[in-house]
Amino acid sequence: MPTASERIPAAVRPLVSERARKTLDLVEKFVNEECLPADPVYHAQLGTGATRWTYPPIMTELKTKARSLGLWNQFLAGHEHGGAGFTNLEYGLMCEQLGRSRTASEATNNAAPDTGNMELLAKYGSEAQKKRWLGPLLEGEIRSCYVMTEPDTASSDATNVQLSIKREGNEYVLNGQKWWISGAGDPRCKVYIVLGKTDPNHADKYKQQSIIIVPSDSPGIEVKRMLSVYGYDDAPHGHAHLIFRNVRVPAENIVLGEGRGFEVMQGRMGPGRIHHAMRSIGAAEEALRWLLTRANAPHKQPFGKQLSEQGVILQWMAKSRIEIDAARLIVLNAAAAIDAGNAKTALVEIAQAKILVPNMALDVIDRAVQTHGAEGICQDTPLAYMWAQVRTVRIADGPDEAHLEQLGKKENKKAAEARDLIQRQVEKTDALFKKYGTKELGPCPRL
Amino acid sequence: MPTASERIPAAVRPLVSERARKTLDLVEKFVNEECLPADPVYHAQLGTGATRWTYPPIMTELKTKARSLGLWNQFLAGHEHGGAGFTNLEYGLMCEQLGRSRTASEATNNAAPDTGNMELLAKYGSEAQKKRWLGPLLEGEIRSCYVMTEPDTASSDATNVQLSIKREGNEYVLNGQKWWISGAGDPRCKVYIVLGKTDPNHADKYKQQSIIIVPSDSPGIEVKRMLSVYGYDDAPHGHAHLIFRNVRVPAENIVLGEGRGFEVMQGRMGPGRIHHAMRSIGAAEEALRWLLTRANAPHKQPFGKQLSEQGVILQWMAKSRIEIDAARLIVLNAAAAIDAGNAKTALVEIAQAKILVPNMALDVIDRAVQTHGAEGICQDTPLAYMWAQVRTVRIADGPDEAHLEQLGKKENKKAAEARDLIQRQVEKTDALFKKYGTKELGPCPRL
Amino acid sequence: MPTASERIPAAVRPLVSERARKTLDLVEKFVNEECLPADPVYHAQLGTGATRWTYPPIMTELKTKARSLGLWNQFLAGHEHGGAGFTNLEYGLMCEQLGRSRTASEATNNAAPDTGNMELLAKYGSEAQKKRWLGPLLEGEIRSCYVMTEPDTASSDATNVQLSIKREGNEYVLNGQKWWISGAGDPRCKVYIVLGKTDPNHADKYKQQSIIIVPSDSPGIEVKRMLSVYGYDDAPHGHAHLIFRNVRVPAENIVLGEGRGFEVMQGRMGPGRIHHAMRSIGAAEEALRWLLTRANAPHKQPFGKQLSEQGVILQWMAKSRIEIDAARLIVLNAAAAIDAGNAKTALVEIAQAKILVPNMALDVIDRAVQTHGAEGICQDTPLAYMWAQVRTVRIADGPDEAHLEQLGKKENKKAAEARDLIQRQVEKTDALFKKYGTKELGPCPRL
Amino acid sequence: MPTASERIPAAVRPLVSERARKTLDLVEKFVNEECLPADPVYHAQLGTGATRWTYPPIMTELKTKARSLGLWNQFLAGHEHGGAGFTNLEYGLMCEQLGRSRTASEATNNAAPDTGNMELLAKYGSEAQKKRWLGPLLEGEIRSCYVMTEPDTASSDATNVQLSIKREGNEYVLNGQKWWISGAGDPRCKVYIVLGKTDPNHADKYKQQSIIIVPSDSPGIEVKRMLSVYGYDDAPHGHAHLIFRNVRVPAENIVLGEGRGFEVMQGRMGPGRIHHAMRSIGAAEEALRWLLTRANAPHKQPFGKQLSEQGVILQWMAKSRIEIDAARLIVLNAAAAIDAGNAKTALVEIAQAKILVPNMALDVIDRAVQTHGAEGICQDTPLAYMWAQVRTVRIADGPDEAHLEQLGKKENKKAAEARDLIQRQVEKTDALFKKYGTKELGPCPRL
Repeated sequence: MPTASERIPAAVRPLVSERARKTLDLVEKFVNEECLPADPVYHAQLGTGATRWTYPPIMTELKTKARSLGLWNQFLAGHEHGGAGFTNLEYGLMCEQLGRSRTASEATNNAAPDTGNMELLAKYGSEAQKKRWLGPLLEGEIRSCYVMTEPDTASSDATNVQLSIKREGNEYVLNGQKWWISGAGDPRCKVYIVLGKTDPNHADKYKQQSIIIVPSDSPGIEVKRMLSVYGYDDAPHGHAHLIFRNVRVPAENIVLGEGRGFEVMQGRMGPGRIHHAMRSIGAAEEALRWLLTRANAPHKQPFGKQLSEQGVILQWMAKSRIEIDAARLIVLNAAAAIDAGNAKTALVEIAQAKILVPNMALDVIDRAVQTHGAEGICQDTPLAYMWAQVRTVRIADGPDEAHLEQLGKKENKKAAEARDLIQRQVEKTDALFKKYGTKELGPCPRL
Repeated sequence: MPTASERIPAAVRPLVSERARKTLDLVEKFVNEECLPADPVYHAQLGTGATRWTYPPIMTELKTKARSLGLWNQFLAGHEHGGAGFTNLEYGLMCEQLGRSRTASEATNNAAPDTGNMELLAKYGSEAQKKRWLGPLLEGEIRSCYVMTEPDTASSDATNVQLSIKREGNEYVLNGQKWWISGAGDPRCKVYIVLGKTDPNHADKYKQQSIIIVPSDSPGIEVKRMLSVYGYDDAPHGHAHLIFRNVRVPAENIVLGEGRGFEVMQGRMGPGRIHHAMRSIGAAEEALRWLLTRANAPHKQPFGKQLSEQGVILQWMAKSRIEIDAARLIVLNAAAAIDAGNAKTALVEIAQAKILVPNMALDVIDRAVQTHGAEGICQDTPLAYMWAQVRTVRIADGPDEAHLEQLGKKENKKAAEARDLIQRQVEKTDALFKKYGTKELGPCPRL
Repeated sequence: MPTASERIPAAVRPLVSERARKTLDLVEKFVNEECLPADPVYHAQLGTGATRWTYPPIMTELKTKARSLGLWNQFLAGHEHGGAGFTNLEYGLMCEQLGRSRTASEATNNAAPDTGNMELLAKYGSEAQKKRWLGPLLEGEIRSCYVMTEPDTASSDATNVQLSIKREGNEYVLNGQKWWISGAGDPRCKVYIVLGKTDPNHADKYKQQSIIIVPSDSPGIEVKRMLSVYGYDDAPHGHAHLIFRNVRVPAENIVLGEGRGFEVMQGRMGPGRIHHAMRSIGAAEEALRWLLTRANAPHKQPFGKQLSEQGVILQWMAKSRIEIDAARLIVLNAAAAIDAGNAKTALVEIAQAKILVPNMALDVIDRAVQTHGAEGICQDTPLAYMWAQVRTVRIADGPDEAHLEQLGKKENKKAAEARDLIQRQVEKTDALFKKYGTKELGPCPRL
Repeated sequence: MPTASERIPAAVRPLVSERARKTLDLVEKFVNEECLPADPVYHAQLGTGATRWTYPPIMTELKTKARSLGLWNQFLAGHEHGGAGFTNLEYGLMCEQLGRSRTASEATNNAAPDTGNMELLAKYGSEAQKKRWLGPLLEGEIRSCYVMTEPDTASSDATNVQLSIKREGNEYVLNGQKWWISGAGDPRCKVYIVLGKTDPNHADKYKQQSIIIVPSDSPGIEVKRMLSVYGYDDAPHGHAHLIFRNVRVPAENIVLGEGRGFEVMQGRMGPGRIHHAMRSIGAAEEALRWLLTRANAPHKQPFGKQLSEQGVILQWMAKSRIEIDAARLIVLNAAAAIDAGNAKTALVEIAQAKILVPNMALDVIDRAVQTHGAEGICQDTPLAYMWAQVRTVRIADGPDEAHLEQLGKKENKKAAEARDLIQRQVEKTDALFKKYGTKELGPCPRL
């Protein structure tokens, strides 16, 4: 089989450096030989009882191996802090490989939400904040949460956020609820990046919010319960419903300054969506690999026929191939657009990737599930869990429908020019009709 | 509005030369300012009666303008014969612009089936054949047909072709039927490139066929009738059902040699599919432009609301934007794959484009039709005709289903490697379970 | 093959009388043995030239036969005027048979728009109006148009209609434009039922409109042009774009009274939609029959395999069967709802049929087209024309999207009750938790 | 809100007796007022630890209430053994109500797989078998499993089953593996109905199988593990992977006789599929109810707009309404077909229901999930669990694709008649052409 670097789509091959190709192949090899085999062991080490919310020993082994191979923090695109200097497109290709395994992103310290939090701290953090939190995160010693979503508001619109952050003397006091705080189940999670309101009555609704750093062991934080995703608890990472009751943190924990939460939050987005999308593409590729394997399993020939001899299954393979490849090009094009400009100039391309990829991946994974029959919906393949993971992407960071509406409005802005163009053409057409003395086609002869 | 060259997707921008960008913008301008306004006049000049199968005068004007602008024969990628030397990707981008208009491809001498026929003659023709037929075709003085499909066989599988080509002395004698001979209605169509069987009993079923050049005015050719496409006769081009009765042509009209028809036919394919696909993308873009215009038409506000204020219509805009852009990347990637290798090494990419594009374009055009209501299904917009044209692409050159099955079989060839990979991972997983002494998750506690 | 009456779905069989079953089988036999064979002759008798907008002689033969068999005006459900007294469900089953052929509805005098116009005249017409127009229509001596849609407004919302109907002495004077006036091409079309505004400034926007009867040969009516539907002109019926310039009609031609146009218009709808939907179901069944035939055609075996041996084609057959049968039940259920109440109490059921059926039929017909390949898109099967006909149904009488939005709003009205129900259940759940002392599931053990 | 009996579709209303309507409304009331409120308590009483695979006390309360209301064993259609004598259609309507709640089917002793097993015992069991097992099952004292599926074969094709049932003296000895043995986790599950091979070499491959009754506490049965469904363990019911090692049962436990397993198995199917499908329809209705509630939740207005004001959400409501109603009619029609004949004469109708319903329900439920956002995928609504449950239906009892292929083959059997009909029509058409002297439409005038 050609390696990952040999399979880079022809259209973008010129954009990938020799160094990135080598790293890409190394990532693929690491995922194939270390991470995918470790996934079931990781799952089993969690167990169902007392050990479920702990740190599975095999992760330590994987992290050590990854680091020794130089596969560490590739996400830090072109940053200082030991950033690897890969372009978004190059790192995106690596994310596809990481996305095939449950353990690979964490093993190489490229796992969300740490990556976004590290970027945030690197970009907006004070020196003290960097020293205390960014350093250990870059070393993979601790983990973090991004604490934004709230249960009782439509918080996909961040202006609705209600958690109160009140200045009292040299401290800020936090009160409110948050949920879907992913990673809060991990015993190594030491820090929360929290979005709340410092000035809920500010005339400019984009200046009411602030972002503040909260140690996860601060008194007053209660984990009300853990949320499941289609029956999966995602241990030990987990998704917490948190209650903040008079949680006090030093004033210097505010990021960038009071009232700048919205600005910081927006700076955090962008490339992350690309990388998340590429992970979903990796999941889809992995699902297709399972589909191929099952469709040719010698002991599974219902009514005497191999599934891969059936036209319908062959169509699933073909459609999956087309859909995965089209989605990958959409994401890589968005990455190229960021690399050629920035996340703001690439908004349309990023939105396309955000919308298209999870819907595509869900279709491909579901075909793999269906091909496996009962085996596909249980714990015997990674497929059912993969599907549940990808299903969240259609909701996280704003539902499809919100992004479609925004993208539609952007497209609609071209309407005036489209109308003008058609109008000018109509006028020219009229002139041509006159010039040639051509008659418009009339009614039926009888009339 | 940014020009066509400014809208080239970020991912492939590095692959387009400065010269190609300039030509691309010139093509766009020509299509916008000359061809689209001329389309309704072209249609009207055909009329409904005696003039329907003639050469509309406005085409002469367009061809003269195109040639004076240097927009001529761009399809001749890197060939001698005055070829412009554009890559497939570069010419593909131009095809997208040409595909927005009914007249643009012919006006610039880039129209099918002439382009494929010219490539065939340039590649396989004898000097005499080139002189007599290729020259006038390159000059746009005459037009041609590609005569392959037959009514009574499943001739998408070319080995089924039955038209008989029999050697008699210094001549070949043709007998049989052909249909869907596109372009046969045009009075300027002077030559047929005909596929038939010279040796129907040859043991190798790929050596039974030959391709032969037949002047369109040869005695014995009867146009039995013209075929319609969803009610459109496609005049003056048209699609003919032909009968060959003892049609005699000189022996030197055979192309490349007896029994080499299959080989010649296969050489003719490839890039043409890319260019055709790009034209359909142009059609989809044009349809979206119409959709935008109608959704904002001030006099069309059912129940007091502009269509563009409705969420469903905004979703149509957004989805159309995503689907068009994804399909374009798939085609450009196929073009890049041909440019980096050849049509054979890019088979998978070409098949993806062949399958994906018309299905996408039909969806987009149908949304534009639906947005227009009754206006969309009649002659008042280019949409209904456009839809019918693109609908043929799902059938021409083999139906979707045949291409999907082939592509599925190609994907299925990866099954062995997929299985081996999973198998090796399972073994490694077992080893890890042992190493760590981890237990697989067991049954429920009760049991 | 079981007859039409034997194929009535089990669920509704008890609703069909013995008499209706017999008539239904007679209709099927008439369509099979007379109408379907006559369709291509009808088409050919129209020709392409001077005879195109005339009355094909074979229609006279069909009408005579139909009448002699007692197959005439079955649509007149339970009315006086010689109405056959069938229920909507019974007549609906007959419409399915009629819808399989291009000629059958007219041959049995059950063709739109005459049926709706006859119902309108029977229900709202004065005795004089009935005598002059309803009589000859019931006899099939003349035909009629329903003149409502306008080119320059969003007239799917009838309050937007702008054609002016002004009283002057003992006459009304009409000025304005109308289009999509179906049937206006037929030389036997003698009367127009016209919707316009008599009082455009009336405070109640539903009282501004009136309906008036206009002889088709009234001076001042110009047929500006005929509109095509995907390339089809639908001759000799046709769809006209009409201009009314000071068209004068006697005051007694007003229907029911000035300002009652909206009321009359609404009374005209309802059952007609059911019958139209059943005709589309007949078209889908006929398309499936063609699909089955082609998939087993002995001379069409691409790559050596009968299409009906391919899993994908078998799935098309199965899905088509399911989708047709589900859509038929939806329509029959709407008919049963009208029969059990009236068109107003069955609004939801009628809307369901209006939306579901054409979308289903387009899918089925398109599968049949694709199965036929090039043969499917031209004049050699009824499929392409059928598709174009059904495509109009997604637009006529309001686009899908308008009906979906209305239906959505109706469903949404149940929200309050749904919320209350869920709310009461939540309260009961809380009580049960207390009663049992059960604890809600808490956080992960670590926390 | 109208009651369940008032909402019976008009088309089938005449088929539902007064008695059934009353019971139906009682079932709805019981589900609304008792079961739906009990569902979260049932879930919580299971806990996450030692109590997970036990019998939640609230079920006892529900069963007592159900029985006191006379809501017990309604499934026993027209049988002796205290059967309620409802038709399949009538009981189907009740199943829809039961399917809205997690607890309702068991609370009324209408839960799978017991219902099918009770029918099997009632139909094929010996008197002793009935006394020992059927009695307690009818009383709801014990539960049962249906043990058919195997992990290492394509056992959707029952001829592939491999578990060995060997006669040894007065006993049978069972060896082999089974999985997806639903209900095996329940402590009250006392009996397994097992399909295996008594004569694996029998020439008739439908006579190799036997069905035998095995007490669940028989020595030699190991629960290897419990299978999860998208992360759900379905406790306390559960899905077991069982190993049979020399499990011995008395010879009289064989059902109907050796070699008659296939026959018994086929007799078990049929109506069960209808009732299962109706439960999924109930789930879809419940999901739509949640969707309506959320779309109008006052505290959830992203970007200042209620979801129910958005066109896309309104379309979801409308489409869901149409799709649910169409699917319900398909199932009720199948039930009516069984009631009018039997499960064999209604094979096509049953297959339609089997295929259509889960696909429809998954779409509707997924729309409800998406409308809820993050709330929809976790434990805070019944939606995610409901989705996972319904997802299994596309696989259980044979995957969609197998049923589609079978249904396609049945439809394809009509091809010969379709061809004959078309052929006869072509001949008649030819005769008509001659009779009228009509010419077929020829080529373009030029030619």
